[in-house]
Amino acid sequence: MAFLTEACKLKRVDRATPLCDGSRPENSGEHSWHLALYAMVLGEHAPDGVDLNRVIRMLLIHDLVEIDAGDAPIYGNHDIAAKEAEELAAAHRIFGMLPGDQGADFLTLWLEFEAAQTPDAKFAKSLDRFQPPNQNLASGGGSWLDYDVDYDTVATRVGAKIANGAPSLWDWIAPKIRAFFAA
Amino acid sequence: MAFLTEACKLKRVDRATPLCDGSRPENSGEHSWHLALYAMVLGEHAPDGVDLNRVIRMLLIHDLVEIDAGDAPIYGNHDIAAKEAEELAAAHRIFGMLPGDQGADFLTLWLEFEAAQTPDAKFAKSLDRFQPPNQNLASGGGSWLDYDVDYDTVATRVGAKIANGAPSLWDWIAPKIRAFFAA
Repeated sequence: MAFLTEACKLKRVDRATPLCDGSRPENSGEHSWHLALYAMVLGEHAPDGVDLNRVIRMLLIHDLVEIDAGDAPIYGNHDIAAKEAEELAAAHRIFGMLPGDQGADFLTLWLEFEAAQTPDAKFAKSLDRFQPPNQNLASGGGSWLDYDVDYDTVATRVGAKIANGAPSLWDWIAPKIRAFFAA
Repeated sequence: MAFLTEACKLKRVDRATPLCDGSRPENSGEHSWHLALYAMVLGEHAPDGVDLNRVIRMLLIHDLVEIDAGDAPIYGNHDIAAKEAEELAAAHRIFGMLPGDQGADFLTLWLEFEAAQTPDAKFAKSLDRFQPPNQNLASGGGSWLDYDVDYDTVATRVGAKIANGAPSLWDWIAPKIRAFFAA
C-alpha cells in the first residue's frame, strides 16, 4: 500500500505534451492510462507473438520512475547516460517498496520495457511514441511548437521508434505530421 | 483513433476525491490508471478464479462514460436511475466510435463491470471503492469532509462494496477509517 500511495505522485509530474484540447500539460499518470487504452484498442496492429496483457502492464508502470527523475521531454537536450542512471536508481527505490518477489517482478518488467528488445517491449515503446504526436496534432502543435522542431526531427526522434514496433501506425500518422509542418 | 482522441477528455473530468497530497481533485483519467495499478499490485487479494488481465481492462474503460455523464460522487444524492440511463447512452455513443466488433466487446465488458455479478467485475468494483478511502486518509479527509459523512455512512456506502469483492481489503482499511473519525 505504501507503493500505491507513492504512485499517486505521478499525477503531479507534468509532461511536455498538452492534452488534446490544449488546455494544460498532460501528467504522467493520465498519460499512462491513455497508453494502456491505446494498447487495448490498437492491439491488432501489434506484430504476431506480442502479449497485449504484458504490454498493458508495462505501460502502466513505465513512467513511475519519473516520480524521482521527472519527465525527460523527447525534444529536450539532456545527458542521456545521467538520466538513465537517475531512472534506474528511481526504479530500485520505488519498486523496492513492494514485497520482495513482487518488487523484483515489477523491476524486471520495467527493465524489459527500457531495453526495448523483446516484441512486447518494442510494441509498448512504439505506443509511448505514437500517442504524443496525436495529441500535438489535436491541440494544434503542442510540444513541436515549444521545441521549434521540424518534420525531419520528428521523423528521426519519434518516427523511427514508432516504426520499429508498429510500422502501420507510423505509416498512418506520418502524412498527417508532414501536412501539419507543410501548412 | 477518433475513440482514442475522444478518450482524452476523461482527463478533464474531476472527481470528488483529492490526490493523496490534497493539492487538487483527482481526474477520472489518472484515477483509472491508478486503479489498474491497484489491480496489478493487489491481485493476490482477489478471490480464486479472478482473471486479473480482464479486471485491468475493465478498470481502464470503466469511467469513460463520464465524458458525457460526469462523475457521480459516491456521497452525493443523485437520481440513480437517471444517472444509469445517462451512462448507458454515453457507453453506446463512446464505444460506438470503435469498429463494430471491438465496440461491442468494449460495451460488453463495461456492462459486465456495471452489473457487478461476475467474480472479475466484483473485484474490479471493490478496487474502485477501495482507492478513494486511501486517498482521503492520505490527504486528511478529502471527500469525507466535503460531504460531512461519518464512519457508518462510509461503511454502508463503500465498505459493503469493498467487502463484497475483496473482504481482506476492507478488513485492512476499516480500522484506519474508524480511527480517522474517532480522532
